[in-house]
Amino acid sequence: MRIVLGVSYNGQGYQGWQSQSSGLTIQDKLEHALGTFTAQRVSTLCAGRTDAGVHGLMQVVHFDTLLERDTYSWIRGTNANLPKDIAVQWAVQTTTDFHCRASALSRRYAYVLLESQIRPSVESGRVGWTFNTLNEAAMRQAADFLEGEHDFSSFRAAQCQALSPVKNLMRIELHKRGAYWRIEFEANAFLHHMIRNIMGCLVQIGQGKKPPEWMAEVLAARNRKVAAPTFSPDGLYFLGPRYDPQWGIPDRTPAYDALP
Amino acid sequence: MRIVLGVSYNGQGYQGWQSQSSGLTIQDKLEHALGTFTAQRVSTLCAGRTDAGVHGLMQVVHFDTLLERDTYSWIRGTNANLPKDIAVQWAVQTTTDFHCRASALSRRYAYVLLESQIRPSVESGRVGWTFNTLNEAAMRQAADFLEGEHDFSSFRAAQCQALSPVKNLMRIELHKRGAYWRIEFEANAFLHHMIRNIMGCLVQIGQGKKPPEWMAEVLAARNRKVAAPTFSPDGLYFLGPRYDPQWGIPDRTPAYDALP
Repeated sequence: MRIVLGVSYNGQGYQGWQSQSSGLTIQDKLEHALGTFTAQRVSTLCAGRTDAGVHGLMQVVHFDTLLERDTYSWIRGTNANLPKDIAVQWAVQTTTDFHCRASALSRRYAYVLLESQIRPSVESGRVGWTFNTLNEAAMRQAADFLEGEHDFSSFRAAQCQALSPVKNLMRIELHKRGAYWRIEFEANAFLHHMIRNIMGCLVQIGQGKKPPEWMAEVLAARNRKVAAPTFSPDGLYFLGPRYDPQWGIPDRTPAYDALP
Repeated sequence: MRIVLGVSYNGQGYQGWQSQSSGLTIQDKLEHALGTFTAQRVSTLCAGRTDAGVHGLMQVVHFDTLLERDTYSWIRGTNANLPKDIAVQWAVQTTTDFHCRASALSRRYAYVLLESQIRPSVESGRVGWTFNTLNEAAMRQAADFLEGEHDFSSFRAAQCQALSPVKNLMRIELHKRGAYWRIEFEANAFLHHMIRNIMGCLVQIGQGKKPPEWMAEVLAARNRKVAAPTFSPDGLYFLGPRYDPQWGIPDRTPAYDALP
């Protein structure tokens, strides 16, 4: 049978999601915890790898096993062996027709950004930062150029392994709460560093250093060199994929309500 | 002249506010940063010492100096020498009539509590936790017994240095956002561990393990042994003192809006 897990983590102390020989990644910690609980080697696949320093509110993984455990045991048994900044939030048993990556209809991310003359402190490592105030109307206008299906090569990291640079960016939402921006992105899939590269451009436009139309020029250039530098990973949160409701996969985790 | 600073910090990595020979406290880091910036020894007084693991949104400190600097230099020069999880938010110059502790009309704290069958992960170290759901009406009824001027000896730690156990607890507010409770407290002053001891009792009442009237019994007993164990420091935030408006001291820092 196939077990699907929803996993939350604070990415500050880890070298990203993907397993490495250092053992200091979230996948390494999760597979070690599953191995301890099951006394077997467990290999997981994930819905979307996150970079070093990026947080996960609902990473989704799956693995196949012959072990019979009720879903609550998968949660409790794994969490007992995970560090305190990683936890399984839910477990669902599916058929092998479900695939955490291939079955995903979309992925959602949020970027949280502090707008303040003072750098982050209490929320260090968990928010990006802009010293200058941001113009929401300018950022909204720039974001509109990106929504829809486009070739996002200008926002693609050199090491990106995606087969195609064409993605469908379904929505970009801008929210503000006090001094904190929360910018949400949903796409069928994202290229490597795509959100952090878009954020770099959005912030320059919000600060008035570039006009909103510059976003359309960057997009049309299909050339990474014309876009802004990659923005900090600190404020980036993987909110999770979406699936067809038939699979019975939860839509979100409680920590979403702890974002500004 | 007297310089007053508002300081924010994540308490997770420190042994509390008060200076220790280890040097691993927030006061030590702040005084080291001020000493580096001014090339002089600077000793600070604070409005309310916080325990190890407790966070500060707006600790207020003061010190006297003969150095002439504009207020923005005090902010920038100190922050350049502080670790990334501590930052000065504002600086105000006052006469020596102002005293960060003695002039405070009240102190405000918030306790953030995750209500979930799964322990904290993304927000590890920054929220308290209850596995069981909490009954708001029962907690409200219990909190009402505490509001006003009372002898709070039942909620006082043995090592408390306050001259009197009688304090005026002006308000307790209960807020809920998704799975997160935010419980705010304001009093003229607090005894050592008073909020964490009240939280221990409030959570037992919210969980239905004790009736709301138990809070009145605990209060009347004036005996620490009858109250619940001291609750975790993880979810406790010092929101800051309040002063007479004549002093021109800010009321809050932006990070307040990042609390659930």
